[in-house]
Amino acid sequence: MQDNLSYINQHKDRFIDELIQLLKIPSISADPAYKNDVIKTADLVKESLKKAGCDNVEICETPGYPIVYGEKIIDPALPTVLVYGHYDVQPADPIELWDSPPFEPVIKKTDIHPEGAIFARGACDDKGQMYMHVKAMELMTENDQLPCNVKFMIEGEEEVGSESLSWFVKRNQEKLANDVILISDTGMISNTQPSITTGLRGLSYVEVEVTGPNRDLHSGLYGGAVANPINILTKMIASLHDENNHITIPGFYDKVEELSREERDEMAKAPFSLDAYKKALDIEEVYGEAGYVTNERNAIRPTLDVNGIWGGYTGEGAKTVIASKAFAKISMRLVPNQDWHEITDLFKNHFESIAPKSVKVEVKPHHGGQGYVTPIDNIGYKAANKAYTETFGIQAIPQRSGGSIPIVALFEKELKSKTILMGFGLDSDAIHSPNEHYGIFNYLKGIETIPLFYKYFTEMSK
Amino acid sequence: MQDNLSYINQHKDRFIDELIQLLKIPSISADPAYKNDVIKTADLVKESLKKAGCDNVEICETPGYPIVYGEKIIDPALPTVLVYGHYDVQPADPIELWDSPPFEPVIKKTDIHPEGAIFARGACDDKGQMYMHVKAMELMTENDQLPCNVKFMIEGEEEVGSESLSWFVKRNQEKLANDVILISDTGMISNTQPSITTGLRGLSYVEVEVTGPNRDLHSGLYGGAVANPINILTKMIASLHDENNHITIPGFYDKVEELSREERDEMAKAPFSLDAYKKALDIEEVYGEAGYVTNERNAIRPTLDVNGIWGGYTGEGAKTVIASKAFAKISMRLVPNQDWHEITDLFKNHFESIAPKSVKVEVKPHHGGQGYVTPIDNIGYKAANKAYTETFGIQAIPQRSGGSIPIVALFEKELKSKTILMGFGLDSDAIHSPNEHYGIFNYLKGIETIPLFYKYFTEMSK
Repeated sequence: MQDNLSYINQHKDRFIDELIQLLKIPSISADPAYKNDVIKTADLVKESLKKAGCDNVEICETPGYPIVYGEKIIDPALPTVLVYGHYDVQPADPIELWDSPPFEPVIKKTDIHPEGAIFARGACDDKGQMYMHVKAMELMTENDQLPCNVKFMIEGEEEVGSESLSWFVKRNQEKLANDVILISDTGMISNTQPSITTGLRGLSYVEVEVTGPNRDLHSGLYGGAVANPINILTKMIASLHDENNHITIPGFYDKVEELSREERDEMAKAPFSLDAYKKALDIEEVYGEAGYVTNERNAIRPTLDVNGIWGGYTGEGAKTVIASKAFAKISMRLVPNQDWHEITDLFKNHFESIAPKSVKVEVKPHHGGQGYVTPIDNIGYKAANKAYTETFGIQAIPQRSGGSIPIVALFEKELKSKTILMGFGLDSDAIHSPNEHYGIFNYLKGIETIPLFYKYFTEMSK
Repeated sequence: MQDNLSYINQHKDRFIDELIQLLKIPSISADPAYKNDVIKTADLVKESLKKAGCDNVEICETPGYPIVYGEKIIDPALPTVLVYGHYDVQPADPIELWDSPPFEPVIKKTDIHPEGAIFARGACDDKGQMYMHVKAMELMTENDQLPCNVKFMIEGEEEVGSESLSWFVKRNQEKLANDVILISDTGMISNTQPSITTGLRGLSYVEVEVTGPNRDLHSGLYGGAVANPINILTKMIASLHDENNHITIPGFYDKVEELSREERDEMAKAPFSLDAYKKALDIEEVYGEAGYVTNERNAIRPTLDVNGIWGGYTGEGAKTVIASKAFAKISMRLVPNQDWHEITDLFKNHFESIAPKSVKVEVKPHHGGQGYVTPIDNIGYKAANKAYTETFGIQAIPQRSGGSIPIVALFEKELKSKTILMGFGLDSDAIHSPNEHYGIFNYLKGIETIPLFYKYFTEMSK
């Protein structure tokens, strides 16, 4: 598709610059302090959809952050692709570990990205991957080759649970009616081995609060005589895994789908080097559930991780205090068939039940979502695979991801359509981490590959 | 001693006002941000000693915060009392739990303090109790009744380990030569039942750092496959106590002095209501080492408490991250005969030994001090008891305190003299906590009682 490639080469500097402008706005949905920036980002996305050739572009108000909608209906008889993405980003902390400010994008070459990568919060997750679709839309419009109908739905609360999106989707089934949903918010194996994510883990995110004495106490006068909420919290959290790193919450594994030996052997074929993995993370040993290998532990098995913990004196120097309260943010990754509401209840009941009488415990459910699996025999998957094969010169490998995009399950339930996860990011892109980045190669390759998905999906739909 | 009482009544408003001025300066030694305020406080203490009648008042420079020294030598043949106190205070956080700003002192009546109490960080610990001695000195000077020699040594690093004080004491044995050391930095049972602290616990304070992957990771992509430093830290801390709340560090109890049944029965005679204790702290149950009652757990038994813990995302909302590092501040209260250096080493070796290979662990010793016991048959104790008996109309009860004043053991070693702990604070004064306060009654009673100690100590020394 030479004309597409030449169009991309001709305009790539502008494509990169437009993305950089988008990345400069700190649209952190988790922190109310950035409210105005999140709104500003929505407006910028709206403008970009108009310029790319969408009609009826609008900012759809919700109980939370708005959803940017745009569409191009060329013929009701043709299939419709619904593109989903998000314009909000993760918080940037720990800020001191960034080599350059998270919202002042810079392009640097790396071993994995010899053509350079854009370093900024959201570069890969998901502004960079979302904007590939906007630019692919521009390309198809300019080259007059859009083969089907398109709808864009870009939200601003993906990093905090997509509550407003569920609200919006439930109320706009007709407006959002489509034949397939296309999302780029996942990764692929490498720049020479594309992969398509066929499974996602669900999520249950909770916050726990342990309260001991009604005020902070002098650890000398009270130490040893009253329950220290931090000590108790560590005991309670530690007890959530047994010596084999199985989660001890009663009923937690009841609905977990056990993969067959064949399926696990199939998974094992994906290229993976444990040494390279450990080297990249600078760890001596991996750590996880007994009986499973790394790529199973982070994909087909449920997990329980503390995402944050705090209590007592955390400043400079020493303070001999027994805190009144201790807190933790805990998330569980779930596999298909585990219901996140049910798991959240199991956690809450169990965690409250193991608290000694000397403390009070509160479990606040935060948000969550169901896991998801895409069959690889539907035309959406086939079209995506054909597109990758053409631009990368090699077939894509189907892959289970450990991550969660809770709304994928919601889409299937409410919109009755399958989602295709065409991810162009790499594990090494450090999403959710300091120095997040996205390869220029990946960005442009996405813009080149996406139009082919439209082409083949439309052909296969006939 | 009517003239003393009338002098106090005549000047009490000024006594209170001067203390309030001292409390307004946030002399937080743990936080470098308050360096200038700590210095400013030292200067104010210096001025107050001059006004109170001390000679040779000076700011003694040290490697850290200065020590304020002053003396009044009326006759080398007479005994010398060395008064110790500290002008630094604990950090004020959690600031949001204060009913009034910690460094804007206010006087409020409480059930326990019907005559009013001064609410401010340091009101009791130790500015209020230290300043009683300055005002007692003024009183003895003005009433021309100082019966012996006095030396004042007021430091600014008590809340962070008194390192510079040890440095100073070791280099000034002659200057600090004395017959007894007098300190008001402890509490008494109640305003109707004075007590004298005869035992103090030692302290070992450490900070631990657990490092997993070399950067924060997405908990979906890596969750379950790598060691989460926070989960690991909770497991490691939890393992430091067994099911009977005995500390599991090998050798930790080897040198612990076991009190006889008689001694424990003697201790049990001190008035104590477990219900009132639980009610005051709003806890359903107390919690501690099996085989010991509350007043033993917090006085004659060693303990291990987490004073602070932090790691991962602790901000608003949710972040699905696996932190690269997790931290905790841990302190151990020690009993006489446990050497804090030895215990610190035992902790370090044990804690590092229990870390799984999948993380790196660093233990940073912070500071510490030895425990201490005063015999109740020496004249210092007897003089203090006689002073209390005269002003309170009831004998003082000897009491073991769970707190630590590490320098008391140092004084005995370097200055070869015993320390008398004449505390006028109450457990309910919330030292180290939000809304710390000190009763006006206690403040004035201290100023009234202290000169009597000088009188009887001098008489008994003949």
